[in-house]
Formats: sequence, structure tokens, C-alpha cells
Amino acid sequence: MDPRVREHAEVIVEHSVALAEGDNVIIRAPAVAEDLVVALLEAIGDRGGNPVVLDSNARFSRAYLRASEEFETPSHELALIEESDVYIAIRANTNVAEQSDVAPETNAAYSQTRQPILAERLSKRWCLTQYPAPANAQLAERSTEAYENFVWDAILKDWDEVREHQAQLKEILDSGSEVRITSGETTDISMSIAGNPALNDYGEKNLPGGEVFTAPVPETVEGEVLFDKPLYHQSREIHDVYLRFENGTVVEHAASKNEDVLTGVLDTDDGARRLGELGIGMNRDIDQFTYNMLFDEKMGDTVHMAIGRAYGDTVGEENEQNDSAVHVDMIVDMSENSRIEVDGEVIQRDGTFVFEDGFDG
Amino acid sequence: MDPRVREHAEVIVEHSVALAEGDNVIIRAPAVAEDLVVALLEAIGDRGGNPVVLDSNARFSRAYLRASEEFETPSHELALIEESDVYIAIRANTNVAEQSDVAPETNAAYSQTRQPILAERLSKRWCLTQYPAPANAQLAERSTEAYENFVWDAILKDWDEVREHQAQLKEILDSGSEVRITSGETTDISMSIAGNPALNDYGEKNLPGGEVFTAPVPETVEGEVLFDKPLYHQSREIHDVYLRFENGTVVEHAASKNEDVLTGVLDTDDGARRLGELGIGMNRDIDQFTYNMLFDEKMGDTVHMAIGRAYGDTVGEENEQNDSAVHVDMIVDMSENSRIEVDGEVIQRDGTFVFEDGFDG
Repeated sequence: MDPRVREHAEVIVEHSVALAEGDNVIIRAPAVAEDLVVALLEAIGDRGGNPVVLDSNARFSRAYLRASEEFETPSHELALIEESDVYIAIRANTNVAEQSDVAPETNAAYSQTRQPILAERLSKRWCLTQYPAPANAQLAERSTEAYENFVWDAILKDWDEVREHQAQLKEILDSGSEVRITSGETTDISMSIAGNPALNDYGEKNLPGGEVFTAPVPETVEGEVLFDKPLYHQSREIHDVYLRFENGTVVEHAASKNEDVLTGVLDTDDGARRLGELGIGMNRDIDQFTYNMLFDEKMGDTVHMAIGRAYGDTVGEENEQNDSAVHVDMIVDMSENSRIEVDGEVIQRDGTFVFEDGFDG
Repeated sequence: MDPRVREHAEVIVEHSVALAEGDNVIIRAPAVAEDLVVALLEAIGDRGGNPVVLDSNARFSRAYLRASEEFETPSHELALIEESDVYIAIRANTNVAEQSDVAPETNAAYSQTRQPILAERLSKRWCLTQYPAPANAQLAERSTEAYENFVWDAILKDWDEVREHQAQLKEILDSGSEVRITSGETTDISMSIAGNPALNDYGEKNLPGGEVFTAPVPETVEGEVLFDKPLYHQSREIHDVYLRFENGTVVEHAASKNEDVLTGVLDTDDGARRLGELGIGMNRDIDQFTYNMLFDEKMGDTVHMAIGRAYGDTVGEENEQNDSAVHVDMIVDMSENSRIEVDGEVIQRDGTFVFEDGFDG
């Protein structure tokens, strides 16, 4: 086994979920991530945790989704999660296109019935991470070895240093109210974040981490945005997502490729037409776009927004939490002709923050 | 996919567990059985069931068991099973020796804490079956293709016909009390089955099926038995298990190979030193010994007995159910110089039953 696999498992168990003796743990992983599951089970056994391993093979989801007419919330899976303390989800693929012949409306109906499962998962100590499988390397257009280096370089790093650097942005957002993001001719969107705390993501719930994010106050989102980085959702690439918001709701949408998948997401429920997250990527070690949101959204010089569910801990007590069965992130390239303003003051221009060298206010 | 995989899934779902709309289903399988899990998920989706897939990779168990000092019953796994209706366990191996360096006493301690999990599983509609993986073919000393034919020939058959043939033995046992089994110079053991129903196994809980079995009244077991067929337990072959019972308890034991594994099983708990099952193999389509108890115990011309837990539905209301964290089957070859007597009457001689042609009473 590559020694970095056991280092990866140690980061998850020690840093990301802070495993304690007696914790009930769920690991959800496909078989291609077998080595990382073995290393996690060594680390969990060593600390006196109680593991259960769920198999997340995409062929399984495809077979079940295509055969089913209707869905209901699986109460046995819900009971499993309710009785757990820690949820570790490992992403890795054997074929990233495996679910490409599942109808978007089937996925939407399925997500809808799984909303209580998602909510319960998010109420636990959880970590979402990536194992560098060959199919993911293929999607990233890298050799398996180069992709392994990319993934483990992004994961095996000094997360305390990351925390300190990112704390500067968290402070600005926590003391600000109105955020406006402009990029080129195509993006000019504003929203209030008043009362909503910004979270400093330094490799806990997401591994790798490397962003500061919060939730917009849903009804305050106004304007238009072109997400010029593609996203990969339900085994399909969606290009050039365009959204226009009025009073917080998407009133116009388009995409240059696979628009029907986008429409399916937006039609999932009411909350799917509102923003649930505003995130600002700060991880300059992630210097390659790999069609993988877990990495792409953390890139330096980018901003991302998610339609759908807001994370509970990014919503202040006085504010409404946007509720939805979905949470789909999309990315704007901020490296050129772009600005982030907070209460009228420019805090980032063309990717460089006000607290960094080379900032040109 | 081999068309027999989907036929296998249909037999499980229709015949073995009689899946109904809304059933919460657990599938427990290793990745090497992927095709059968896919076929099951198609069949389950088609009938409106709700599946969860647990990964039973033996590398996972080994890693966790070797790293752990102590075990506790995982309450989240218990909650999952409590809320389920159907449990489908698929056996298949990548390396049957994977757990050969886990200490027997570790396995015993682990089984002990999992007793509530086992009891809960057995209270559901359940099916244990085999997928013909290459490592299992290797253990059986067959090519993968020949082993596939063996497994699917044993599984894809007319189970109603099997039920009718076996009903003749069930009737004899249900109306009898004292059973005595003798074989060669080495086996002469007797026990009461009074008040305990015999079950006709025609491919429901075990697939393949092909036996009639019941539980002895625990304290009535007297005598000695040499199990002359080897068994494979905890990744180790145990040869020539010898047990001597007094007042229903094992007071002497030996094995010519891996006796320490046998000792570990017997030391699990008090119930592990008593008999929990008497079974009589009747499936003459299983004509090869394959080191796999699911098949071997069903062979014609054999009898098996299990130390440990008795199945609840083989124990009459007035009788005690032997309780244990283990249930380990062992086989006696009855093809030569052997007799089964019920209340003093010979009902099988050298493998041939009283209701079959060629019986020489």
C-alpha cells in the first residue's frame, strides 16, 4: 500500500473527524477505494471506534434507479445514521459516466426522498474526501500517478497554517453585510450575508479544504452570474451555467451543454431555485482544474455558489436556512477583470485579496 | 453479465425472501460479487424495495480485528437491522485465507459482542447465498468456469420438487424423539429431538438448500463423534474434529489440524460447548466436496451437527433454545458403515433413506 494512504487515513481520523473511543462510524466508499478503507479501519480499530462500511458503487445506484418507479425514504438507513457519531464519505470512481443514462428527473425524485438522510448525515461529525482512482485521473486528463500526487499533495498539508491564512477573510466577511461579485461583462450579482457566520474550511468536513464560505440571506440575492467553469453532475458535464435571480429566486437559466440536467436540479423543489452557499476558493496548491468540485471549488482565484440546501452552521439564528434536497456548487473564474466587494469596499481584485501582496485596490 | 446471475437474483428475491413493495432490504456482499448485487438491485427496484448495501470485504474485517483491543456491539448497525425486513448475505471471496492471521481468541471476542446483531438478523426474512468467485473455485480445486456451473446448477433448480422429496424425512423426525447416529468405529452419538420441529430447507434461508434439520434438546446429547470431513473456519482448515459429550456438554475435544481454532470456538461462551443443530444432507446434485459449508452440509450421504446457537424456529415452545455467539457446522460422512436410527428404528443406512429405492433396513 502507498504510504500516503495511511497518512490520508490518519488526517481523516485525527484532524477531520477527531475520532474518539466508542464512536459509531459509517464509512461510505466504492470498492476501488479499498486501500483507504483498510487504512481507515486500522486507524478506527486502534482508537476503539465501531465501523460499518457501506458500498457506494455507481453501478449499484444506476441499477436501482433505472429499475425503480417510485422512491421512499429508507427508514433503516436513516436509523443507521441516527445512531452514528461520524460519517466518512470517500469519493472514487471506476467510470465517472456510470450514471449517464439515469434520467435527471429520476435523480431529482430520488434526491427528494433522501433529504432526511442528507440532513441527518450533515448533523454528524462528517468528512468528504477523495481517493485517487484511475477513472478520476482520466476525467482530470492526468496519468494515475500524476493524479495521485495532485490529490495527496492537496490533502497531506499543514492545515493549521491554512486556517491562519484564511482567518483573515473570515474576519472580513463576519463583519460585513453586502457582498457584490462582478466578473467580465457576464456576472454582476449581489446578496446580503448579514447575520450569517463565515466558516473557515481547513480540511475538516471537506478534505482537501481551502475555502471560506457562508450562506446568503436567500431573498436578498439579485442579479446575474455566468459560471464559466464547467461542472460534473450526475455523470454529465454542464457548461456555462447562466442564472438570473430576482428577489432571491432563479427566474432565468441556461447552459450551453446538458441544460436539461440543470433544469432537473432546479425543479427538484422550491429551495433548489435559491442560493444556499457563497464560497471563496483560497487553496493555491490546487492549481489544476480536475472536473471535481471537492477540489475545483477550493482553487485560488475562484468563487463558487451553490443552489439548494444551506449548511446549518452558516446560518445565523435570526436568519432563514434555505432547505432543499440538493446542493449543487458552480464556479466563477475570478482571475481577470473581476472584483469582490464587501459593503462597497473591494476586498479582492483579479484573485488577489486585500491582505495579500500585490493587491491593487 | 452471465444470464444465470439475473436468474440467481430472481430466485433470491421471489423464492427465498419473497420481497414485497416497501420492504427495507440489506444486502451484505464483497465487491467481487458485484454482478449479483447489480442484478439484485434491479430486482429490488422493480418491486419497490429500499436497499442498503454493506461491503463485507475480508480485508476490512482483518484490518479492523487486528487493530482493535476491545469490541462493543455497534448500536448503529443494530438499529439498521432492527428497521429492516429482509437481509441478503452473499458469500464470495478474493482470498479465502485473508483472515488467517487474525487470532482465534480475537474472533471469539468479536463474535461475542456481535451476538445481538446475529440474533436480530435471524429474526428477519433472510437468505445466505454464494457467488462463484475465483478464490472459491480455487478452494474447491475447480476451474472458475467449472465452479460457476457447479454453483448455479445447485441454485437454479426446481425447489418445489426438493420440498416434496424432503417432506418424507421431516415427517419421520417430527413424529420421532430419540435419534442415534453411528458411523464406523468412531461415531456413536444420541440425542433427543422431542418437541423440536424439523425444518425442510428448500432454498429459502440457505441458497442452495437441500437438508432437513432440527435442534437437539441440549442436555440430552451423549456420546462421541468424529467429523471426518474437514471444515474451513476463520480462514483455516480444521481436520478430523473429535467431540465427546456428557450431559449435552463437550467434555473432550481434538482435531488433527488447527485444534487451537476449534478450542477458540468452544471457549467463546457456554453455549458453544453444546449442540445447536442436527442436519441431514439430501441434495444429491451437490456431488463434490468444496470446503464450503453452505454446499457441503447439503450433500447427500452426510449428516452435520453445529455447536453453538440453535435456530429459533427449530426449538419447540416447551424446550430450551441453545444460545451462543457462534454456530459452527461440522460434517460426518455417512456413505459407509453408517446408520441413523429414530426411536430404535433404522431410517437411513449408508446414505439411503427408508423411503428410497435400495434401502437395506
